[in-house]
Amino acid sequence: MSDMPPRGFPVEEYKTRCATAQAKLAALGLDALFVCTEPEVRYFTGFHTPFWQSPTRPWFVLVPVSSDPIAVIPGIGAPMMSETWISDIRTWSAPQPEDDGVSILADVIGSSGFSRIGVPMGHETHLRMPLADWNALGSAVPDVEFADATSVVRSMRMVKSERELAKTAHVCSLVSDGFEGLGDLLSVGMTEREAFTAFRIDLLQRGADDVPYLVGASGHSFTDVIKQPSDRIIEPGDLLMFDTGTMWDGYSSDFDRYYAFGHVDDDAARAHHVVWDATEAGLNMLRPGVTTTDLWKAMADVMIDGGSLGNDVGRLGHGLGMQLTEWPSNTSTDETVIEEGMVLTLEPGMTFAPGRMMLHEENIVIRADGPEMLSRRAERDIPIIG
Amino acid sequence: MSDMPPRGFPVEEYKTRCATAQAKLAALGLDALFVCTEPEVRYFTGFHTPFWQSPTRPWFVLVPVSSDPIAVIPGIGAPMMSETWISDIRTWSAPQPEDDGVSILADVIGSSGFSRIGVPMGHETHLRMPLADWNALGSAVPDVEFADATSVVRSMRMVKSERELAKTAHVCSLVSDGFEGLGDLLSVGMTEREAFTAFRIDLLQRGADDVPYLVGASGHSFTDVIKQPSDRIIEPGDLLMFDTGTMWDGYSSDFDRYYAFGHVDDDAARAHHVVWDATEAGLNMLRPGVTTTDLWKAMADVMIDGGSLGNDVGRLGHGLGMQLTEWPSNTSTDETVIEEGMVLTLEPGMTFAPGRMMLHEENIVIRADGPEMLSRRAERDIPIIG
Repeated sequence: MSDMPPRGFPVEEYKTRCATAQAKLAALGLDALFVCTEPEVRYFTGFHTPFWQSPTRPWFVLVPVSSDPIAVIPGIGAPMMSETWISDIRTWSAPQPEDDGVSILADVIGSSGFSRIGVPMGHETHLRMPLADWNALGSAVPDVEFADATSVVRSMRMVKSERELAKTAHVCSLVSDGFEGLGDLLSVGMTEREAFTAFRIDLLQRGADDVPYLVGASGHSFTDVIKQPSDRIIEPGDLLMFDTGTMWDGYSSDFDRYYAFGHVDDDAARAHHVVWDATEAGLNMLRPGVTTTDLWKAMADVMIDGGSLGNDVGRLGHGLGMQLTEWPSNTSTDETVIEEGMVLTLEPGMTFAPGRMMLHEENIVIRADGPEMLSRRAERDIPIIG
Repeated sequence: MSDMPPRGFPVEEYKTRCATAQAKLAALGLDALFVCTEPEVRYFTGFHTPFWQSPTRPWFVLVPVSSDPIAVIPGIGAPMMSETWISDIRTWSAPQPEDDGVSILADVIGSSGFSRIGVPMGHETHLRMPLADWNALGSAVPDVEFADATSVVRSMRMVKSERELAKTAHVCSLVSDGFEGLGDLLSVGMTEREAFTAFRIDLLQRGADDVPYLVGASGHSFTDVIKQPSDRIIEPGDLLMFDTGTMWDGYSSDFDRYYAFGHVDDDAARAHHVVWDATEAGLNMLRPGVTTTDLWKAMADVMIDGGSLGNDVGRLGHGLGMQLTEWPSNTSTDETVIEEGMVLTLEPGMTFAPGRMMLHEENIVIRADGPEMLSRRAERDIPIIG
């Protein structure tokens, strides 16, 4: 396992993010950026809690173009927000359905003199507040224009700092250890559910903060790659897939591994070679300046040559960081230019026989001279358990 | 622990939900209900995966007023949705930022002849799709009116079926066992982080599917009740609070417990008595027909008498079920009439000394003759560890 990096970030990390956002806002003629989702609020403030699982209360942060961020949040969050670098914290006693932060937010916007506010409205974003409250806000500040600012957060969050990279590297290393040790945990006769629990506990024991994303499947044939466990008993000759987004200090891994119990059938063995080779093709051409579409094509070509019957996943990998999946997507049309500091998953997948899906995934960071592995590179052969 | 209920739901559970929604839609003059968030999609279809953690793809379900639900979803979800009772499944290859399901959704709406569609837009709801796509949908079906349908999902999800209740009862029983055994897991000298991991692993070993929500704090004084662990070492005389939303088969617990290491100081001991007594006051008056505001007042009065210095949480409990928190809220203005089959948390909390917060929480279901405990009632005295 990699050395454990420090927890959290120094204030300068947030100040740098804020300054970068401000330069982008200025270039777009925006007076402020408005964010209301967990990763964006955390990105700019450091506010970090699983309490976002409660849908009850909205949380707002404004990043003005020329001053420090303003948090407009429910009172229950005030103690935690006060521990961050944010000093301008406005609170109200939430929940208050008749006016859940809308008028206080309108007051802040009005008194700050913002006339053009950027809001992430594009792909992979959403507005985490009631639609009726969003409309009420618009009515409360009728002269304010809300413009799409997806490009601001997208371009910033795609390129990671060294401090962010250290966290992702750490959790990927920890999960690599977990996958490599899985043969000691699992055996024929266990149920899928028992296997899931064993792996989850193992990852926690290895130092993960949490394992919020764990999906998998077992059997000779499966196509569902986002599945929860069943009481199915693992049998000799089964394939098992585990795919996990494990978290450490707010940063996620996202890669999968296949195993076979006792022996692997020829079709599955060959399919694993194909997706492994497709990953290798991606790794071999990855460097700053190529696009996600170039990357997609390099991997897709190997799978077409390898007899792919198709892929329902819709892409061959994506960005990774604070969330399980982030911008960009490796697709035939995405065309995002890959930059130094981006973290990507390479995730070639294909139906290799009717009803049988093979998905392979690695996590990498783009360096000046090419990719650096974050997950520990899988073996070309499916590992055999038992 | 309670007997383990069956996993999942029989098809009639979903048909009943669908029929109930349809009656409510008809009463409101709506042609269909549109939902796009994890709990609502799961509620009507049974589609259950942690893949919603990926923000990339939107998921849509339409519940027409007089026919079965229609799922409009990314292809990656097709295998799982096909396993549910839903037969009308339209898919597209997502992500496709230029048209991520919008035109297929518009086609379904147009060909179905819907002219008035209900969408949850009110308190505790949000639209899990890009705002730009929502606006594009509106432009694609310009003659369709989208009306607020929060009341449809709110009124349905607040009242639980016996099958739902069995799942909540099971997970609450399991967490009660965990809390009662915590004295064997924790000791002075551990860090908060070690304590969190030990408890999380223990809950998994007891049969929890996952522990997505675990917050807590330790020390003589703390006010942050939604906190993640630090490397602080637990000392003699410390208080420790754990609050967890642990999941079993898609249903959540939500209650906390306080502990003291070695001994408990008089102020904390008294404060625990006050919040425990406030809970008791709530339990004693709870029955169908009283309101959440009556309940709030019964608990608030005890805390005012007990010397409360205030409460930043904003409410004294809430609904519980598929999510950590659900409608309604126990506040001074909520006024929701409590019905048989509702699951509530009673959560009186108060600042009992400057910088010191005490929060107590129990989970109950409302029966015809009053409350039935789901969490196992805490002792009035804070348990001492070590």
